[in-house]
Amino acid sequence: MPRHPDRLIERLAQPAAARMIAASGTAVVFAGSVEQHGGHLPLGTDAFAAQSIAERAAARLDTVAASLGPVGVAHYHLAWPGTLSLSPGTLIAVFTDVCGGLAAAGARRILSVNWHEGNSATLRLAADEAQGRHGVRVVMAETHVISHTLFPGEMEFTHAGSMETAAVLAFDPSLVHLEDATPATDRAAGEAAHALFRRPDVYPVMRDFHDVAVTGWYGRPELATPERAEEIAEAVADHAVREAREIWAALGPAGEGR
Amino acid sequence: MPRHPDRLIERLAQPAAARMIAASGTAVVFAGSVEQHGGHLPLGTDAFAAQSIAERAAARLDTVAASLGPVGVAHYHLAWPGTLSLSPGTLIAVFTDVCGGLAAAGARRILSVNWHEGNSATLRLAADEAQGRHGVRVVMAETHVISHTLFPGEMEFTHAGSMETAAVLAFDPSLVHLEDATPATDRAAGEAAHALFRRPDVYPVMRDFHDVAVTGWYGRPELATPERAEEIAEAVADHAVREAREIWAALGPAGEGR
Amino acid sequence: MPRHPDRLIERLAQPAAARMIAASGTAVVFAGSVEQHGGHLPLGTDAFAAQSIAERAAARLDTVAASLGPVGVAHYHLAWPGTLSLSPGTLIAVFTDVCGGLAAAGARRILSVNWHEGNSATLRLAADEAQGRHGVRVVMAETHVISHTLFPGEMEFTHAGSMETAAVLAFDPSLVHLEDATPATDRAAGEAAHALFRRPDVYPVMRDFHDVAVTGWYGRPELATPERAEEIAEAVADHAVREAREIWAALGPAGEGR
Amino acid sequence: MPRHPDRLIERLAQPAAARMIAASGTAVVFAGSVEQHGGHLPLGTDAFAAQSIAERAAARLDTVAASLGPVGVAHYHLAWPGTLSLSPGTLIAVFTDVCGGLAAAGARRILSVNWHEGNSATLRLAADEAQGRHGVRVVMAETHVISHTLFPGEMEFTHAGSMETAAVLAFDPSLVHLEDATPATDRAAGEAAHALFRRPDVYPVMRDFHDVAVTGWYGRPELATPERAEEIAEAVADHAVREAREIWAALGPAGEGR
Amino acid sequence: MPRHPDRLIERLAQPAAARMIAASGTAVVFAGSVEQHGGHLPLGTDAFAAQSIAERAAARLDTVAASLGPVGVAHYHLAWPGTLSLSPGTLIAVFTDVCGGLAAAGARRILSVNWHEGNSATLRLAADEAQGRHGVRVVMAETHVISHTLFPGEMEFTHAGSMETAAVLAFDPSLVHLEDATPATDRAAGEAAHALFRRPDVYPVMRDFHDVAVTGWYGRPELATPERAEEIAEAVADHAVREAREIWAALGPAGEGR
Amino acid sequence: MPRHPDRLIERLAQPAAARMIAASGTAVVFAGSVEQHGGHLPLGTDAFAAQSIAERAAARLDTVAASLGPVGVAHYHLAWPGTLSLSPGTLIAVFTDVCGGLAAAGARRILSVNWHEGNSATLRLAADEAQGRHGVRVVMAETHVISHTLFPGEMEFTHAGSMETAAVLAFDPSLVHLEDATPATDRAAGEAAHALFRRPDVYPVMRDFHDVAVTGWYGRPELATPERAEEIAEAVADHAVREAREIWAALGPAGEGR
Repeated sequence: MPRHPDRLIERLAQPAAARMIAASGTAVVFAGSVEQHGGHLPLGTDAFAAQSIAERAAARLDTVAASLGPVGVAHYHLAWPGTLSLSPGTLIAVFTDVCGGLAAAGARRILSVNWHEGNSATLRLAADEAQGRHGVRVVMAETHVISHTLFPGEMEFTHAGSMETAAVLAFDPSLVHLEDATPATDRAAGEAAHALFRRPDVYPVMRDFHDVAVTGWYGRPELATPERAEEIAEAVADHAVREAREIWAALGPAGEGR
Repeated sequence: MPRHPDRLIERLAQPAAARMIAASGTAVVFAGSVEQHGGHLPLGTDAFAAQSIAERAAARLDTVAASLGPVGVAHYHLAWPGTLSLSPGTLIAVFTDVCGGLAAAGARRILSVNWHEGNSATLRLAADEAQGRHGVRVVMAETHVISHTLFPGEMEFTHAGSMETAAVLAFDPSLVHLEDATPATDRAAGEAAHALFRRPDVYPVMRDFHDVAVTGWYGRPELATPERAEEIAEAVADHAVREAREIWAALGPAGEGR
Repeated sequence: MPRHPDRLIERLAQPAAARMIAASGTAVVFAGSVEQHGGHLPLGTDAFAAQSIAERAAARLDTVAASLGPVGVAHYHLAWPGTLSLSPGTLIAVFTDVCGGLAAAGARRILSVNWHEGNSATLRLAADEAQGRHGVRVVMAETHVISHTLFPGEMEFTHAGSMETAAVLAFDPSLVHLEDATPATDRAAGEAAHALFRRPDVYPVMRDFHDVAVTGWYGRPELATPERAEEIAEAVADHAVREAREIWAALGPAGEGR
Repeated sequence: MPRHPDRLIERLAQPAAARMIAASGTAVVFAGSVEQHGGHLPLGTDAFAAQSIAERAAARLDTVAASLGPVGVAHYHLAWPGTLSLSPGTLIAVFTDVCGGLAAAGARRILSVNWHEGNSATLRLAADEAQGRHGVRVVMAETHVISHTLFPGEMEFTHAGSMETAAVLAFDPSLVHLEDATPATDRAAGEAAHALFRRPDVYPVMRDFHDVAVTGWYGRPELATPERAEEIAEAVADHAVREAREIWAALGPAGEGR
Repeated sequence: MPRHPDRLIERLAQPAAARMIAASGTAVVFAGSVEQHGGHLPLGTDAFAAQSIAERAAARLDTVAASLGPVGVAHYHLAWPGTLSLSPGTLIAVFTDVCGGLAAAGARRILSVNWHEGNSATLRLAADEAQGRHGVRVVMAETHVISHTLFPGEMEFTHAGSMETAAVLAFDPSLVHLEDATPATDRAAGEAAHALFRRPDVYPVMRDFHDVAVTGWYGRPELATPERAEEIAEAVADHAVREAREIWAALGPAGEGR
Repeated sequence: MPRHPDRLIERLAQPAAARMIAASGTAVVFAGSVEQHGGHLPLGTDAFAAQSIAERAAARLDTVAASLGPVGVAHYHLAWPGTLSLSPGTLIAVFTDVCGGLAAAGARRILSVNWHEGNSATLRLAADEAQGRHGVRVVMAETHVISHTLFPGEMEFTHAGSMETAAVLAFDPSLVHLEDATPATDRAAGEAAHALFRRPDVYPVMRDFHDVAVTGWYGRPELATPERAEEIAEAVADHAVREAREIWAALGPAGEGR
C-alpha cells in the first residue's frame, strides 16, 4: 500500500470526493513547510513527508486528503534564502477555512497530518478553532514524532538527517541528492542544541535555526534507503490511523459547532 | 518546453532556489482553486491549470515557482460538496507571506499566475499589499483570459468545457475522465447567464454557481486534445512572460517597501 | 431628470427613507475617492462623479442613495499631498456596515455605484462580504466604464481629461477651473502607460501614478461642456439602472445571509 | 462668516489643498451619523451639524476640512429603519487612514469635530491611534457639548429638539420640516431617561434608544430659528478654534509617530 | 464592611461562584493599570483602587468580582520604565471574553468598576461589544469620579495625590511609602495642565504624561489616612451599587445577544 | 525562600521596578486560568499555582513578576458555570503587550511561567510573537510538567488532585477546602481518558472536559500537605530558574526585534 495521490482531493472529481467524505464521515488534512534542508534535501521536505503519510492515511480511512498548501510556519529558517513562512494566524485561517469545506461535505472527524515541529502549536490552535466553528473532532498526527518513536535508533531526530531523508525517499526518491550536500554541523553539537528546544518542561522558543546548527543541518542522511523508507512510511501511517480510530471511538462523534 | 516540476520551489534544494531567485531577481507565484467541475474534470482543475503555466513561465524566467496552496476563493461552488474555499482575507495573507520570503531572497519582480476568475479581485488586493509591504513589483497573469484571447473560438470561456479540459490535459491527461461526465447544463443558457457576471460595466457578484449552471457545468470538453492542449499551454506561457517582461521594462525596477 | 440630492439618505427624514427602502426593496450605495486631478479638477472628482450617477439611479429606482464617504482607495496618488486613501480593509468594512443597515430596512438589492478604478477590486470583495453577511444581491455599476463605453470617442479614458471633467460638470460646474490647470503629461505617453495597467490578461498593479503621468494628469478637459455632461450623466444612469434591473430579474431575489 | 463649503478638501484642487495644509500645519476632520431624528429632522442631522462647524473652523484655521463619511456609530437607533451604523473599529480605521493622508501633507495638528454623542468614545480611541501612528496632535471638539454649554437654556440637550434643529438650520434650513414631525416623547420623561446615560460617574451604555424615548425623539424643535442658529454656529466655531489653539500652544508641536 | 477578597471569582470554588452568579443574575468586573505613580505609590495603584471597590460592590450585590488583569491602557506613562500597557483592542477583547463566561453562568447585569481615566473610552466600547454579543446590560462605575464628586475638597483629582493614596490605603496600607516619594511637580501647574485634558467640550488626547507633570506626579498624598480611606471606599462602593441598581431598575432586564 | 508578593510589579513603585528590570535585564511573566476544579479547589487554581512559582522565580532572578491576568484559555471547562476563558488571540495580545512594556524597561530575557496545560500552545505562539516584535528571548517554564517530573509518584498528573492541591497550598492554604469536595470521577478512568490527550504523537484536541471526567475532576487531593507543598514549590522554582539560566547562557543575548 504505497503512495496514493488518487486520494488528494484536488485530483478527484467532485462526485467521487463527495461520496468518500460522506460515506466515511472523515477527512485528512496535511500541513507543509518550505525551509532549507541543506543541499541534499528539497526545501519542501516537511511538506512531502506529511503528504506521503496523509495519502496513506486517507487510503486506510477510505477518504480524501486535503493539502493546506506547501508552506508552513518556518520563520526561524528565513536566514537561508529560499525559505518561505506563513505567520501562525495565516495558517490557522487556512486550516479553519479548509475544515469548513470538509465539514460541509459531511466530515465530522478530521485527521491532521504534520511533519514539521514548527507547525505544531499553530496547528493545535487551528484545530481548536475548527472544532469550535465547524463541529468537527480533530486528531493531530505528529508524524515525525511517530517515526522517531517507532524506530528510535534508526530514525534520528535531527534536521535533514536519516529520518527526514527517509521521509522524502518514501515520497519521491528523485528529490534526494546526497552528492549535493552542503557541510553538516557537528552532530553531537546539533543534537545538544536541538535538545534544549525540545525539553518538555523548560525550553526556549526558536528564533533562528543557527542556534541549533550553523550550517543549517546535521545528521546522517546516508543511513536511509528507499526500501526501508517505504516500510517505515507504511508503519507510520498504520500507527497514525490506528490511534486516531481508537481516539474517535473513545470520544464518540463530534457534536455541532458552537 | 513542456511542464517543469523542477521549477517548483519545494522540489528544489535551498542553494539552487536561492541562486535562481537572486540571479533573476524574479519569482513566480500561482494560486489555485478546489471546486466542482462536473464528473469529468478534477476538483483542482484551476489549480492544475495555473501550475502548468506557472512552471513553464518559471522556466522561461529561469526562476522558481511557488504555490499559494491548492485552495482559492470559491465559496459560490460550496453547494457541491467537495468544494473548498478560503476567505479572501486568508488568501491575501498567504500571498503576502509568501512574497515576503521571496523578496527576502532577492525577488524584486513577482509574476502572479492565476486561472480562477473567483480569485482575481482577491489576488489584486494581495499584490497591492505585497507591493506596499515588501517592495516588489507584481505582474498579474490571468491565464484563462490569455487562453481565451489567444484562441477565442477554440478555447471557450465556459466552466469545465474545452478550455478547462485542455488546461488539465496539458498538466496531466490522466486527470480527465470524459466517461464520468455528469449532465451538462444547456450551453447557450450557461453562456448567457455567465456573461451577466462578466460584463465590464454593470455586473452582479457571484453567490452560487447554480445561477450560471444548475448542473454545475457547461461546455464541450470533448473538443480538447492532449497535443493541442500542450501547444496552447506553451503559447499562453510565452505570452504571459513576454508581456510581463515588457511591463517590468516599461516601469523599471521596484523601489523599497513602504 | 437632473441631480437628485433629495435621494441622499442623510438628507431624508427617517419615515421617508424607511418607506422608500421598504417599498422598493432596493438601495444605492456609492464610493468616492479624494485624489489629485491636476489643478483644474477637485480632489473629490471621483466622489462627485459617482454621487452624480448614484443620485440619478436612486431616483429611477425610487429609493435612497447612501454614501460610503468621500475617500476611497487611492494610495498610489499619495505622492501628491492632499490625496487621502483608505486601506482596502477599511473600505470593505464601511461597505459591509452600511449594507447591513440598508438590509435591516428591507433592501434585498443593492446597486453599488463607483467611478474610481482604484476602488473596483475592493468593492467587489466588499459586495461579496455583504452578500454573505446580509443576504443582499449586489450589482456593481462601474460608471467610468459605462461612460467610456457609451461615448467612446468623446469620453476619453484618461486621468482628469474630458470624461472626468464632464463628470464633475454634471455634478457642479463651479468645481471645474480650467484656468488653474497644472501642466499636462503628454497624452500619447499617458495613454500608453495607462493602457499597461488596464490590460485584461497580463497587467501590473499600480504603485505610484507617476508611472502613468509624471505631472499627475493627461487628457483634454477642454472638450467637455456642461450641457453635454448632463446628457451623458443621464445616459449613464439610464444604462446602469436598466442593466441592474435586467440582472436582478434574471437572478431572482436574494436569499437569506449565510 | 457663514458656511464654507470651499474648505471641504474634496471640493478643492490638489495644489490649493496642499498649500493650505502645509502652510497651516493643521487640518480639520469631522464625523457624522445617519440616525433617526423623528419626522422633522433629516437622518444626517449629526453629520450636518458637525460639517457646519467643521467648515467654519477650517476657515478660521485657514485650512481644509475632511469628512470621515456621513455614517457614525449609531447601532442603538437601528430599530428605526433607515438608520445606518459603522462598528467602532470601522470608524477608527477611517479616522486613522484619513489622518495618515493629512499628516503626509504636513498636518501636525488635527481638530476632530463631532456632534454625535455615540461617536465620542470611538473618536477618542481613533485619535489615540492616529497620534501614535502618524505623529499628529489631535484636539477633540464635541460641538453638541459646546453648544449646550454656551447656550444652556436655549440649546436643550435632547434628541431632535431645539439644539439639533438649530444645528441643521445653520447648515441648510431646507432640511427642517416641522410639519412632518412624528409624535414626541414626553420631554420630562425623555430628559430623565437620557440623563441616566449621561451621568459622569455611574452610567449604562446605550443599547436601544427606546430606553430614552419610545417615539425616537423629544424636545422643542420649534424654539430654533435660522438667524439665531447661524449666530450660535458661529459662536461654537469660535469657541472650538480658540480652545484648540490654546491647547496646541500649551502642549507644543507634536513629535514624530511611534 | 471592609475588603472582600472572598468575592474574587478566582478564589471561589466553582459551585459557590456558579450559585452566586445564578442567584443574583449579576457580576462585577474590574479593570486595572500598571503605571508609574512616583516613588510613594505602587505601579498598580489604579488596579488596587478598582479592586478595592469591586470587592465591596460584589459583596453588596452578593455576587462575584472578576479581574480583567492588572494591566490597562496607559501608554502615555511608558516614558517611565516599569509602566505596562495594553492596546485598547486587547482590553476590549479581554472584557468581552470575560463577560462571555459570566453571561454563560447567568449574569444578565454586569457592573464594570474602573479607577483609571485612561481606560474609560476603551471600557465603554468594550461594554458596547459585550452587550451586543452576550446580551448583558453593563453599568460603568468610574470610581475616581465618584470619589472626587462625593468628597470634592478632600479627594483631589491629581495623579498620585491624596485621592489615589487613599484608594491604595483602603486596599493595603503597606503599599504606601511616603518616605520614598520622588519630587512632585508643582501642584498648580499640574492641575492646570491636567484640566486641559479633562475639559468636556474641547480637549486633547494624552500622548505623554510629561505634558501634565514632568516628574510624573503632583498632589498631596500626605492628606490621606487609613481610617478615612476606609470610610471613603465604603461610601464609593455604596454609591456605585445604589446607582447601578437604580439604572437596572429603570431600564429593565437585558434582552438576548445580537 | 517562600512566596514573594513583593516581586509583583504592580506592588512595586516605579523606581524600584525599573531598577530591577534594568539591572537584571530579565523579567518574569505568568499566565493563569479560571476554571472549575471541583468543590475543594478554587477556580483560580492554575493562576495561583503559576503565581506562586513566578514570584519565587522572580526573587531568584532578582527581578519583577508580571501577571497576564487571572484568566487563560479554558473554554473546554465552560460547561461548568463560573469558568472563564480568553480566546487564544486575546491571550497572545496580552502577552505581547506586556512583554513590550518589559522590553522597553530593559528586559531582554523573559521567563514565562505557566501551570495550565490549556495555555501552552497559545503561550508558545505568544512568545514567538513577542520575540519577533520586541527582540526578547523567551523561555517557557511549564511548571505542572516540572512538578510532575521532579516528583512523579507524589505529584499526580490529574485534574484537581494531589499536584494541584499542593500548588494551591503553597500559595494560600486557606483556599483549599477538602470538606467541600464534589464527587470525584473514577481515577483510573480519568487517567486513561486524560492520557489520550497527552500522547505526544497522535492526540485529540480538548473540546469538553467531560471527555476526561464527567464530574469535572479526579485524583487524590488528600495526599498533599502544606509543608510538603512548600518544599515542592521551592524545588520547582529552583529547577525553572536553573534551566532558564542554562538556556540563556547557551543561546546568548537576544538581538533586536524584527
